[in-house]
Amino acid sequence: MTAHTSPARVARLGQNQYGKAEVRVVRVVRDGATHHLKDLNVSVSLSGAMDDVHLSGSNANVLTTDATKNTVYAFAQKHGVQSAEAFAIHLARHFVTRQEAIHRARVRVEEYAWDRIGPREGGHSFVRDARETRTTEVGYDGTRWQVVSGLKDLVVLNSTDSEFWGFARDEYTTLEETRDRILATEVAARWRFAWNSDDQSPPAWEEEYARVRGHLLDAFAGTYSFSLQQTLYAMGARVIEQTPGVDEIRLSLPNRHHFLVDLAPFGLENDNEVYYAADRPYGLIEGTVLREGAEAAIPVTD
Amino acid sequence: MTAHTSPARVARLGQNQYGKAEVRVVRVVRDGATHHLKDLNVSVSLSGAMDDVHLSGSNANVLTTDATKNTVYAFAQKHGVQSAEAFAIHLARHFVTRQEAIHRARVRVEEYAWDRIGPREGGHSFVRDARETRTTEVGYDGTRWQVVSGLKDLVVLNSTDSEFWGFARDEYTTLEETRDRILATEVAARWRFAWNSDDQSPPAWEEEYARVRGHLLDAFAGTYSFSLQQTLYAMGARVIEQTPGVDEIRLSLPNRHHFLVDLAPFGLENDNEVYYAADRPYGLIEGTVLREGAEAAIPVTD
Amino acid sequence: MTAHTSPARVARLGQNQYGKAEVRVVRVVRDGATHHLKDLNVSVSLSGAMDDVHLSGSNANVLTTDATKNTVYAFAQKHGVQSAEAFAIHLARHFVTRQEAIHRARVRVEEYAWDRIGPREGGHSFVRDARETRTTEVGYDGTRWQVVSGLKDLVVLNSTDSEFWGFARDEYTTLEETRDRILATEVAARWRFAWNSDDQSPPAWEEEYARVRGHLLDAFAGTYSFSLQQTLYAMGARVIEQTPGVDEIRLSLPNRHHFLVDLAPFGLENDNEVYYAADRPYGLIEGTVLREGAEAAIPVTD
Amino acid sequence: MTAHTSPARVARLGQNQYGKAEVRVVRVVRDGATHHLKDLNVSVSLSGAMDDVHLSGSNANVLTTDATKNTVYAFAQKHGVQSAEAFAIHLARHFVTRQEAIHRARVRVEEYAWDRIGPREGGHSFVRDARETRTTEVGYDGTRWQVVSGLKDLVVLNSTDSEFWGFARDEYTTLEETRDRILATEVAARWRFAWNSDDQSPPAWEEEYARVRGHLLDAFAGTYSFSLQQTLYAMGARVIEQTPGVDEIRLSLPNRHHFLVDLAPFGLENDNEVYYAADRPYGLIEGTVLREGAEAAIPVTD
Repeated sequence: MTAHTSPARVARLGQNQYGKAEVRVVRVVRDGATHHLKDLNVSVSLSGAMDDVHLSGSNANVLTTDATKNTVYAFAQKHGVQSAEAFAIHLARHFVTRQEAIHRARVRVEEYAWDRIGPREGGHSFVRDARETRTTEVGYDGTRWQVVSGLKDLVVLNSTDSEFWGFARDEYTTLEETRDRILATEVAARWRFAWNSDDQSPPAWEEEYARVRGHLLDAFAGTYSFSLQQTLYAMGARVIEQTPGVDEIRLSLPNRHHFLVDLAPFGLENDNEVYYAADRPYGLIEGTVLREGAEAAIPVTD
Repeated sequence: MTAHTSPARVARLGQNQYGKAEVRVVRVVRDGATHHLKDLNVSVSLSGAMDDVHLSGSNANVLTTDATKNTVYAFAQKHGVQSAEAFAIHLARHFVTRQEAIHRARVRVEEYAWDRIGPREGGHSFVRDARETRTTEVGYDGTRWQVVSGLKDLVVLNSTDSEFWGFARDEYTTLEETRDRILATEVAARWRFAWNSDDQSPPAWEEEYARVRGHLLDAFAGTYSFSLQQTLYAMGARVIEQTPGVDEIRLSLPNRHHFLVDLAPFGLENDNEVYYAADRPYGLIEGTVLREGAEAAIPVTD
Repeated sequence: MTAHTSPARVARLGQNQYGKAEVRVVRVVRDGATHHLKDLNVSVSLSGAMDDVHLSGSNANVLTTDATKNTVYAFAQKHGVQSAEAFAIHLARHFVTRQEAIHRARVRVEEYAWDRIGPREGGHSFVRDARETRTTEVGYDGTRWQVVSGLKDLVVLNSTDSEFWGFARDEYTTLEETRDRILATEVAARWRFAWNSDDQSPPAWEEEYARVRGHLLDAFAGTYSFSLQQTLYAMGARVIEQTPGVDEIRLSLPNRHHFLVDLAPFGLENDNEVYYAADRPYGLIEGTVLREGAEAAIPVTD
Repeated sequence: MTAHTSPARVARLGQNQYGKAEVRVVRVVRDGATHHLKDLNVSVSLSGAMDDVHLSGSNANVLTTDATKNTVYAFAQKHGVQSAEAFAIHLARHFVTRQEAIHRARVRVEEYAWDRIGPREGGHSFVRDARETRTTEVGYDGTRWQVVSGLKDLVVLNSTDSEFWGFARDEYTTLEETRDRILATEVAARWRFAWNSDDQSPPAWEEEYARVRGHLLDAFAGTYSFSLQQTLYAMGARVIEQTPGVDEIRLSLPNRHHFLVDLAPFGLENDNEVYYAADRPYGLIEGTVLREGAEAAIPVTD
């Protein structure tokens, strides 16, 4: 090396990943006249020996994101979609084992639910059930799996059995205490399964989803609440207690404020009947609940 | 005004209206331990003797949009919310009869549905049912009513029983014919009631909504389709035929294309099993169906 | 058809149209090392002899929306994109004259602006200028043209020189008068050109756009305002007075409320310095300004 | 506690935080007739001794999110808004030092830019410049600061000087190589300042922002690209090399694909002139560039 300093020495490459995002795939299974649908949005992220492509532009180690997309469609045909989790596991395993330069794969899936139109079990007509979006994120490094499933966009509301009082006060505190308010939130939850190795038999992904979702709703509805934090913990603890295969759950609960409208200027009482549903700002309560003995592993991205 | 020509002479005021948009009101009815919710987004538009405010800035004839908002909240308390339509009628009547300068009112409402959490009839816990948004638009000029109700965001899909062939061909036509495709759309429908005067007894708004929605879904699911236009007409005609109080319906049906993915390069067959759900561009099919003898009155805004 | 009365007799087809929406086309012109970009979102709607496809599903008169999309791309190559208006006119003329069954075409275009990166006139690097979206809507029935151009998403704000007082009061009025407020709005404007026939020479579309946009901004900034209606009229009248080729303009101006925050509880004065920018609800002021002698033709869709 | 095992034992509380999100504050500074604007969206997250509120619903340690909101408005008045970073630092310091139960604060700010209307330096009329959203995130634990500033929504495009070939091939690879393509992306960047202690004098936040933004644009425009990864690294390295106060930068670059349209079926050549701007799926390239010797600290949340 001669005496001149190259500017490139100053910088170095850190963590990096790449892939195809938001591959929209609909898989139909035809069981005679009865059809079944899986409607997914799949995003793949790969990392590994990618120094060259960043530093010199050489693509020799780069599996194209277009091929990633093709793989999603081909696997939907070859393996079917038993569940978002099982499908993501197929994909992650493929990328890590098939390409030497790829050392880690992360596959995220959003799933959209459909109800049947009509009373029958059968048929081929559907209406989108937009109550929530189901999610999963599968990580694989060739040895260990990490599966974090979840849901988002699930809006819930208790019209009573919520109080808020006894809070700390400083010079900027003007809020009045209340013994009866609406408590509403849009649940975003991610739960991590204990399963992490091919040596173990995997969970029944579809059943687990229905179970966790049910516990979240039941705990929200059944908790007499003195704070949204208390409700959050009750929801998370219920899932941990009732779902042995889940070691950790992280909840992000925006407080969708419903403010009682002051109708006194118009000579009217408002006995917890008329509310203004506010947009912004909103309280935002986030927290993780863990199984005793388990270590936290869901990234705090919120 | 003297003889010199002011530049202002060149221009004149045309149609104008003003009001408060997107007033979010949640009305709770407490029937003992059983609560009922109405969740509305209300937009009011008023017009009348408004030349002065435009030409000189004099607000003497202007009922503030803030007062409009207050009225929405006060009426939610005073009159309750039996239905979006009944509530909008209360409001429109008030503005036109209360303010001499206001000659016409238009009230638009979006309604968001909530399901109960838990199996019981009762309770106070709810989960937002985001399958569709219910809409209504009520117009009143002091004499005649026009009520156009509807829904939007309702996504439906038939996974078979849809063909598309025999279409016109020009030099830019490359599409292949198909005898089996997915037909999916996001239904936006607006239907106009025959009811237009206080001399008539009004429809049962809640029941009518459920009825029309049911006919739309049934006709979509039950029509073996050779074109989305045919399905559109079947849906509209079903509503007109089965709902005597509705004189006109306008449907806007984006064709949410699901393209069969070509898996041949990967040595795989795709026997109508794996589809790519496309975003843009999309076909857009719009049309009105009228009762014989009725005149069209729903504005073609799409 | 036998003598029995079919239920279909009750209903008849009204106005209908179809086409491809949101065709995203980017046209590059290479002038040596200097490149020029046009970035459009094109939506085509066609109407005509379309009874058969609705009533029987016969597609014989249906030019596919896929062919419509292909035509957009082919015309971008053949004719280039001198302006959104000129491009839409090419398309509308083609569809109406090429297909006997098509009697009317409407072409809507959104255009996204790009600035050059770097100080030079030349080059091939661009940054999206998202200040506003330019729009046009061209209608053609084989004889007459109607061109309504516009813009939307243009957010403007005056931090003083706006008052609001002297308004009507009813029992729901609680708003206080103000002599100094922020006036902010998101301008959506559509202006109709007088040009309507191939016998006339068309406007210079690009220059007209820049001119109208400039007048809207100048009138907004230069008007000492007593109401948003007054500002609206000043903006519209300025365009009509200063742009001879424009006969009508319609403005939709949401009042993006900026509320002065009450800091008195914290021992602070707020001398028009700290505002809360609200989302909903918002005032919505809409109006048309016409050239004397011109008839209104822009549909009141807002 | 008696011998029986409570189900609550199974679960424990992990990381948690709470606060008010999306407080929209506009701060006006009046310098005679010349006004200056700062337009911010502020989100505060606090953590500390919050076990009680989760486990028992006791709010004794909870500073309400409403007070957090009030503090944002009061500080906008008291301290002004010299920059998003300086404002966030004021807030974070306040929460951690004022409340014993709060051990850590994170303040996120989005800033929206406004240009002046008119040629003058002065005035009080503005148009929103929506080219990008400026961001910052300030973390404070009572001792150390971490400031990660950034931008998002900045859409850039090179219409040539981009190739893509020589990539890895597997059985799902069908993409053709190209020697001339459009390279377009929506830049999201976050850069971490070396400054982390009150013992050091802080950076000139406004100037640093302009500097980093300029380097990002210049590096994007000036890099002849063989892959988006190469462009990402060039952008990040440029910032590290040219901005001594920045130790780390993370870029998230969606590849906004512009596909050349095949016009051959219509007898037309397409010599890199007509492109289809696709929405989904999209390539997503993410990476961190670090100063030699610095440790990575920006969370990989994408």
